[in-house]
Amino acid sequence: MTVDEFLRGVTARDWERLESGTLRLAMVGLGWWTREQAIPAVADSKFCETTVLVSSSHEKGDEVAEDVPHVEATLTYEEFQAGEATDAYDAVYICTPNALHLPHAEAAADHGKAILCEKPVEATRERAEELVAAAEDVPLMVAYRMQTDPGVRRMRELVADGAIGAPVAVHGHMGQQMLDVVSGDPDQWRLDPELAGYGATVMDLGIYPLNTARFVLDADPVSVTAQMHSENEAFRKVPDQHATFTIRFDDDTYAACTASQHAHQSGHLRVVGTEGELILEPTFLGESPQTLTLRTDGKEMVVDDGRRDVFGDEMTEEFDYFADRVIRGEPLSPDGEHALVDMRTLAAIYEAAETGEEASVE
Amino acid sequence: MTVDEFLRGVTARDWERLESGTLRLAMVGLGWWTREQAIPAVADSKFCETTVLVSSSHEKGDEVAEDVPHVEATLTYEEFQAGEATDAYDAVYICTPNALHLPHAEAAADHGKAILCEKPVEATRERAEELVAAAEDVPLMVAYRMQTDPGVRRMRELVADGAIGAPVAVHGHMGQQMLDVVSGDPDQWRLDPELAGYGATVMDLGIYPLNTARFVLDADPVSVTAQMHSENEAFRKVPDQHATFTIRFDDDTYAACTASQHAHQSGHLRVVGTEGELILEPTFLGESPQTLTLRTDGKEMVVDDGRRDVFGDEMTEEFDYFADRVIRGEPLSPDGEHALVDMRTLAAIYEAAETGEEASVE
Repeated sequence: MTVDEFLRGVTARDWERLESGTLRLAMVGLGWWTREQAIPAVADSKFCETTVLVSSSHEKGDEVAEDVPHVEATLTYEEFQAGEATDAYDAVYICTPNALHLPHAEAAADHGKAILCEKPVEATRERAEELVAAAEDVPLMVAYRMQTDPGVRRMRELVADGAIGAPVAVHGHMGQQMLDVVSGDPDQWRLDPELAGYGATVMDLGIYPLNTARFVLDADPVSVTAQMHSENEAFRKVPDQHATFTIRFDDDTYAACTASQHAHQSGHLRVVGTEGELILEPTFLGESPQTLTLRTDGKEMVVDDGRRDVFGDEMTEEFDYFADRVIRGEPLSPDGEHALVDMRTLAAIYEAAETGEEASVE
Repeated sequence: MTVDEFLRGVTARDWERLESGTLRLAMVGLGWWTREQAIPAVADSKFCETTVLVSSSHEKGDEVAEDVPHVEATLTYEEFQAGEATDAYDAVYICTPNALHLPHAEAAADHGKAILCEKPVEATRERAEELVAAAEDVPLMVAYRMQTDPGVRRMRELVADGAIGAPVAVHGHMGQQMLDVVSGDPDQWRLDPELAGYGATVMDLGIYPLNTARFVLDADPVSVTAQMHSENEAFRKVPDQHATFTIRFDDDTYAACTASQHAHQSGHLRVVGTEGELILEPTFLGESPQTLTLRTDGKEMVVDDGRRDVFGDEMTEEFDYFADRVIRGEPLSPDGEHALVDMRTLAAIYEAAETGEEASVE
């Protein structure tokens, strides 16, 4: 392969098989992520269209609909659950507080619709298992956007090709000033265990290095250790304003991770192997240029893939991949079983922090 | 301060007070580090001179002496212990297997000589305590060369000045192919718990991110978690061919660290704060250029301090700092009490890995 071919291939859709088609989406939950990232990404996509908006009120849906060209219906959650306007959409994108994923996924499955559900798939391991069971007869994908990020996919290929020898250690971090970024509202749902689940930070941010490490290594967690604490009053109901955790994977690689909802906005992922290392940075938070660095044998290659709207591009890739697989009736990943491994790992991380004991992922 | 002043100050000796003088050193232990790094660094230094060589035999000492201009005596360990040639040196540099530091330090203290002792200060916490007690009447410094590395000192100043807000998370890694780097001899002492102490990797490599994080944060460890394992036959007697550990510091910062004696040679140290982050990379292993990166408020500054012999320069700085303090009769650091905190932390890390329980550093 020439260098020019490599560079042209960096952002290629290695997964794309569909030639044409449109998947009509009901967007369930109209918070800032859906409005500012998901809906624009669908508008930019090749195979998806937003046709239904589901939220707490018609007013909210109608307001959002003003900027979305092909909306056929705005529904309340109750109307969605009751099965209204099911002819107007083929699949749902669920982006609500974690503990509301289950009822929406159950409704979508009842209506026979494919489901793209935001991460973490639910608030607890048990609820996640219920969700996956409820969706067994429809396509279910969990929205780990890093798995369709071209930089992450190239990193995974390079690891699989042995570019850094055998993986030894992973470092991953994701941090942001949550109260600034998300809404400025300290009563937001991520701080409420009833809605968020085990906590505010590892559930929301730590899951990025965890899941991306799994994908890049093609390995699953075996056991974990963790330390976490909250200091600000706004975080008093959750254990993890700041957190660190280690993971032993089934290929014997270790990951050392940190996550914080009260830190400078930054993220990085690094894999050190026996013969080199790979670094993706900045990552997880949509900042550009996201560069992929390969160091091996005294040489260094740094690739800037040219993307400047990384969040948007990641979400567009994710929606189009989902449509590609759903329309062709082919299996997709990350699926529900994949997401359950994360939920078991998250439960183990919170357990390890609470008990002070290394926890098995089982 | 102008940018030009800042750049000129990057490698300035902020610690230097001595105007002239020479500290005559007995080099105790003539392994590869002493021969290839320490003796050349002393030759390059302003205030030190190698005047005595101590090893297992006169033959070995005489062979090394051929390339060292001012050697007045070569001694066996027994002769050194017995007090021969004490007029020929003012201080000792101890660079032997960990578990041999104690008898040499006891002898040096008996002879009234200042001691610069390699890290870790001894093989176990108890032996380290004995060593520090034995040296209470002479100056004792532990050879954490990162503490006189200008990049690390600038990083510490920037953290203290609030350049990244309050520290939140540290990432540190150090890895090498030990069997290649050190000697190629699988029977080497680092693999023998009798000589190395708790293990081969966290004792030898993990101590770098641990101690450098302490210095940069100006904080001490409170509790730790750890996972480690050995896979290669050569590492069968030690628990940690590969390791990961987390540290909670007394300022509530977390460190997530990895270390490996069977990995691509690389090291990095990163501190993420509430308002920015600092990255020193590559570091710990003498590779150049070692760059210091400061990211804050959307801006990035990368400083290459111009050094191309980082190991050599670090060791020269360390020896001259030691001489500066010893000749002037002033307190020095890192001293024995400082090193004991590392030994307590190392003991806790190995205990945490063995028991699977978070361990307090006490």
